[in-house]
Amino acid sequence: MFFASDNWAGAHPDIAQSLVDAAQGFAPAYGTSDLDKHVEKTFSEIFERAVAVFFVGTGTAANSLALASFNRPGGQVFCHREAHINVDECNAPEFFATGAKLVPVDGPAGKIAPEALAAAIGRFPPDFVHGGQPMAVSMTQATEAGTAYTLDEIAALSDIARKAGLPLHMDGARFANALVHLGASPAEMTWKRGVDILSFGGTKNGCWCAEALVLFDTSKAQQMHFLRKRSAQLFSKSRFIAAQFDAYFRNDLWLTLARHSNGMANRLADGFAASDKARLAWPTGSNELFAIVSNYALKTLREKGAAFYDWPAGPAVKATMREDETLVRLVTSFATREADVDAFLSAL
Amino acid sequence: MFFASDNWAGAHPDIAQSLVDAAQGFAPAYGTSDLDKHVEKTFSEIFERAVAVFFVGTGTAANSLALASFNRPGGQVFCHREAHINVDECNAPEFFATGAKLVPVDGPAGKIAPEALAAAIGRFPPDFVHGGQPMAVSMTQATEAGTAYTLDEIAALSDIARKAGLPLHMDGARFANALVHLGASPAEMTWKRGVDILSFGGTKNGCWCAEALVLFDTSKAQQMHFLRKRSAQLFSKSRFIAAQFDAYFRNDLWLTLARHSNGMANRLADGFAASDKARLAWPTGSNELFAIVSNYALKTLREKGAAFYDWPAGPAVKATMREDETLVRLVTSFATREADVDAFLSAL
Amino acid sequence: MFFASDNWAGAHPDIAQSLVDAAQGFAPAYGTSDLDKHVEKTFSEIFERAVAVFFVGTGTAANSLALASFNRPGGQVFCHREAHINVDECNAPEFFATGAKLVPVDGPAGKIAPEALAAAIGRFPPDFVHGGQPMAVSMTQATEAGTAYTLDEIAALSDIARKAGLPLHMDGARFANALVHLGASPAEMTWKRGVDILSFGGTKNGCWCAEALVLFDTSKAQQMHFLRKRSAQLFSKSRFIAAQFDAYFRNDLWLTLARHSNGMANRLADGFAASDKARLAWPTGSNELFAIVSNYALKTLREKGAAFYDWPAGPAVKATMREDETLVRLVTSFATREADVDAFLSAL
Amino acid sequence: MFFASDNWAGAHPDIAQSLVDAAQGFAPAYGTSDLDKHVEKTFSEIFERAVAVFFVGTGTAANSLALASFNRPGGQVFCHREAHINVDECNAPEFFATGAKLVPVDGPAGKIAPEALAAAIGRFPPDFVHGGQPMAVSMTQATEAGTAYTLDEIAALSDIARKAGLPLHMDGARFANALVHLGASPAEMTWKRGVDILSFGGTKNGCWCAEALVLFDTSKAQQMHFLRKRSAQLFSKSRFIAAQFDAYFRNDLWLTLARHSNGMANRLADGFAASDKARLAWPTGSNELFAIVSNYALKTLREKGAAFYDWPAGPAVKATMREDETLVRLVTSFATREADVDAFLSAL
Repeated sequence: MFFASDNWAGAHPDIAQSLVDAAQGFAPAYGTSDLDKHVEKTFSEIFERAVAVFFVGTGTAANSLALASFNRPGGQVFCHREAHINVDECNAPEFFATGAKLVPVDGPAGKIAPEALAAAIGRFPPDFVHGGQPMAVSMTQATEAGTAYTLDEIAALSDIARKAGLPLHMDGARFANALVHLGASPAEMTWKRGVDILSFGGTKNGCWCAEALVLFDTSKAQQMHFLRKRSAQLFSKSRFIAAQFDAYFRNDLWLTLARHSNGMANRLADGFAASDKARLAWPTGSNELFAIVSNYALKTLREKGAAFYDWPAGPAVKATMREDETLVRLVTSFATREADVDAFLSAL
Repeated sequence: MFFASDNWAGAHPDIAQSLVDAAQGFAPAYGTSDLDKHVEKTFSEIFERAVAVFFVGTGTAANSLALASFNRPGGQVFCHREAHINVDECNAPEFFATGAKLVPVDGPAGKIAPEALAAAIGRFPPDFVHGGQPMAVSMTQATEAGTAYTLDEIAALSDIARKAGLPLHMDGARFANALVHLGASPAEMTWKRGVDILSFGGTKNGCWCAEALVLFDTSKAQQMHFLRKRSAQLFSKSRFIAAQFDAYFRNDLWLTLARHSNGMANRLADGFAASDKARLAWPTGSNELFAIVSNYALKTLREKGAAFYDWPAGPAVKATMREDETLVRLVTSFATREADVDAFLSAL
Repeated sequence: MFFASDNWAGAHPDIAQSLVDAAQGFAPAYGTSDLDKHVEKTFSEIFERAVAVFFVGTGTAANSLALASFNRPGGQVFCHREAHINVDECNAPEFFATGAKLVPVDGPAGKIAPEALAAAIGRFPPDFVHGGQPMAVSMTQATEAGTAYTLDEIAALSDIARKAGLPLHMDGARFANALVHLGASPAEMTWKRGVDILSFGGTKNGCWCAEALVLFDTSKAQQMHFLRKRSAQLFSKSRFIAAQFDAYFRNDLWLTLARHSNGMANRLADGFAASDKARLAWPTGSNELFAIVSNYALKTLREKGAAFYDWPAGPAVKATMREDETLVRLVTSFATREADVDAFLSAL
Repeated sequence: MFFASDNWAGAHPDIAQSLVDAAQGFAPAYGTSDLDKHVEKTFSEIFERAVAVFFVGTGTAANSLALASFNRPGGQVFCHREAHINVDECNAPEFFATGAKLVPVDGPAGKIAPEALAAAIGRFPPDFVHGGQPMAVSMTQATEAGTAYTLDEIAALSDIARKAGLPLHMDGARFANALVHLGASPAEMTWKRGVDILSFGGTKNGCWCAEALVLFDTSKAQQMHFLRKRSAQLFSKSRFIAAQFDAYFRNDLWLTLARHSNGMANRLADGFAASDKARLAWPTGSNELFAIVSNYALKTLREKGAAFYDWPAGPAVKATMREDETLVRLVTSFATREADVDAFLSAL
């Protein structure tokens, strides 16, 4: 009953096998092997246009490099208050984009509210040097709250960014989960809705360590090569990341795995709906659920071996909670089994 | 006949298998799994004292974090002119240790000359604020020239560092190769000779991506946790690095692999000694050879499919070269076969 | 009728004369002249203990260097949401303290609320590496809202900082104004209440460009020398700053000037109290007033040549305002004349 | 007999008086006053084209901001080995241009040798990500050795920079001294010879603290506003720098002062030529002299109160020196009197 995080899971057998295959033989280093190039091409096919792809080791690296590529002196990055870049990356974005500041923007269920974004940007008039200058908007899909922006909601944010002359970054640590939830294509969920740069995550969805920065404006690629190397994210045996992505994309494995985790999350959600001990804080749009559960039930669940985290509740959710309730986060993964979900629900 | 670099090799089958094993099941993330802890303990056993270990993704990350942990405003890092940190890391050390400067120090065959080090440090009198202040000494073992410092030579550098109040960093991207060359213990080659912090490399010696920062002063560990995370080097599924090291250390695989690559390098060296088309620029102390070869022979070798790099010759070596000769670098690895060496030599 | 800012005023004649005197003759550069040393000694007398003093060119430099001296990877600085470092310094603090983040804390009338500070710090449990780590608390005296913390209020904040192991920085751009308002001694308002480092401003109170960083822990002085030089804030003809402070402190000129500006602010406040066109948003504790004024009156005032800025009103103040009213900021200075205040009030 | 540095002198009386005049009245802050604008216009007149001008507090700030405006990840700045930015600025350039590296280039008498520059740049092939990428060339006029590049020599360096696609920065801490030595116009010595950005120094030539960054490409001005503010170099009472420049340029005071200091240096040089105790290491082209003097004579001179610094001799100069001789630096200034020079020479 492991619902602590999707990064508690290991790797899918196909991905493990792909690494074993890649272990053999000699190949040029630093991203120039045939396998690297093949996988880069696959990315272009998946996104239905020429993209520049940069493999990196962690999602934090992908996010931080994306923002660094847009850096301006006194730069302000607009993101949701609960964004991973704002609360879970130990200031890596501020470090990579030296001197940048993250401006938290509010919005319900983990989504940036468009009017709040416009207002936040509006607080930085051009040429008012004291306050600094806007440099980028960053959104997370699926969000840190487990929800997914609709295509229209993405377009609404990119419109605001575009009008302000700002690039739009998407943190896609759980990109596949949002994608299958929406039933959209990768192109529709990104550049067709105005996304300029994407942190494409594979790690949480069955890889060991496979993250990629996807640039829809390939003219930015040249400087990114230097940015990545300077950030110690250029792997010599880069093909070991390529090999993971190779298996990940083969036969749409990535979509299959995401459908499985989302399905397990929905199974949990259905169980909650049928229970009087727990209820969802908001609907899920991925493989993450946030549920309000009675403390008594939580105690029982943990005694029976369920692993998951308590979560700080914002004021809106808090207002709906009783004293003897707690907000918890449950995350499913490619490795979550129906039996575990059912055991959890029956323990509940 | 792949002698371009040890990072053109893949991974040893035992290491590949260890990753397959680690792919299964659930485990806590971010370096807190049982396997992570087990491997950390192994490091302490190998080094015969309690050490703090931080897994990272690249050697550049290990080196840059080591230096960042010693950072001072206006800090000067003393290293060999040809050190990897100085010529091959795209300013990552200067970036991680914001505002630091690398001071190149000369010395023959890739080794810092002690008197040159002392003189370089001496150019920064305490309290002369304009020039900045010394912050660390960094040495490479084995060196970028393929040689290995003797234990006494390490002690000579650490004495100078100690007297100047400076920590000593060792870039051990090819640590195992130097170790088996010297026949020393890990403890003897590091903290017993005054090394404070070590970049311990596994990637070039048969792993996919396994680098570790080893701190002999464990009191520095607390800040390193934040430094590593801020640098986007904390892997969520950290156990995949641990798994590589686990296999690497089991039954002394790491030493076996290093002995093999060194042996292949020596076999090449012996062949060169018996040839009139090539000679070593200096003796090898690891799995790297630098040879002066006639251009005619180089042409033939490359036509027959040998992969290796030309290398810029310093003034001392250049003085010994004829017009129609070139300095080249040959690197062997755990995967180099005798047959390849012999084919190379016979083509020569 | 110049009430736009105290930095629209020039310099007091005594300070101008002191610069003329200092223009003559030769003296050692970079802060080592007799005059530099004399003024440093004066600081120690004024603060009733040995302090280390660093002259810099701007208040932003003083604040940013103070925070840089406390920097930690992933460091979090707690300050009021409206603090100058947070909204008016173009990310200089984040730049100087590479990668630091400012955590805005709320509180009425420009003062950090102690319970809000404690809660904000509490959100960063030790060893939770993802969120980063607390590194300093920064307060402003007088505040950006023109109010002054009482001695007890300062102690309340420093207690919280101390318990969390955090240093306390005071931004004293308007130090003298708060000091004479409280009738306290410099020692009482700083280190006797737990302040560790102070940005001591002279510019807004009659100097041209005289800011000093005052370290109550002199053991930090050695690294500050390098920090200041690296930040391009070590002036070669440093004595021109010393000369300003020399005149500033002679015969308590600084207190006289601050009393004058505060007096002018109070005269304005009294006039508002007697008017039905305007009222204070909160009481003043320095030379800054924030007043809610009818738009009609503002139009008249500006037509008659009064210079001052509209100010964004926070939600609490906004709730007390009518549609046809605006929040404005009025700042008096050493150069403000009674006649100007009276002309303003009569125009009102 | 003060020959230690031109920054040991105070300020010229006209400049002191200009500051007294500027002390009066109210004026908009942060560089927007009429006086600021007037002086900016004067700069454009002096340089015979529209330029963007940014006042800053120190020469180190001007240099570091210039380089920061050209920053690239892994950026390499080519400068003379003895350049102020390389040896006297405590890594401020590396700090402002985060992660940049200074590449020392050699050349006799303080001047970059064109062929050495071309070779140094050539060591960074485009797309070799490991070594980083060239980002700028920086030259110093007059040089740190007191010499001045001829107009042709400037053009030779800018040709190399231009071909490599690199901007050319000129550190003009002693701009006026070189200018009057060459008898050139400001335009001829800068943009007409390919200089892109200039650190224009007034401090060493009779101001207190007046440095300006001059951008010949005004399209770069917008970002420089933010860079300067973020670096804490935007002075609120900016007019106090403007007032210095205003007097500096009036009636060509700056040229008169530079001619005086150069004349004093030449008078010293003539005296050395007539002496058998001292000789110039190389001819002077400004107000700095480097002389090889017998140790006995140095002892006598210092006993009689002469202030000057010993200087480290490079290998070329060292080869011409006897054991009982020392290289010393003598700097004259606007305030140096003939009588002091003559007293020095007669003591010699």
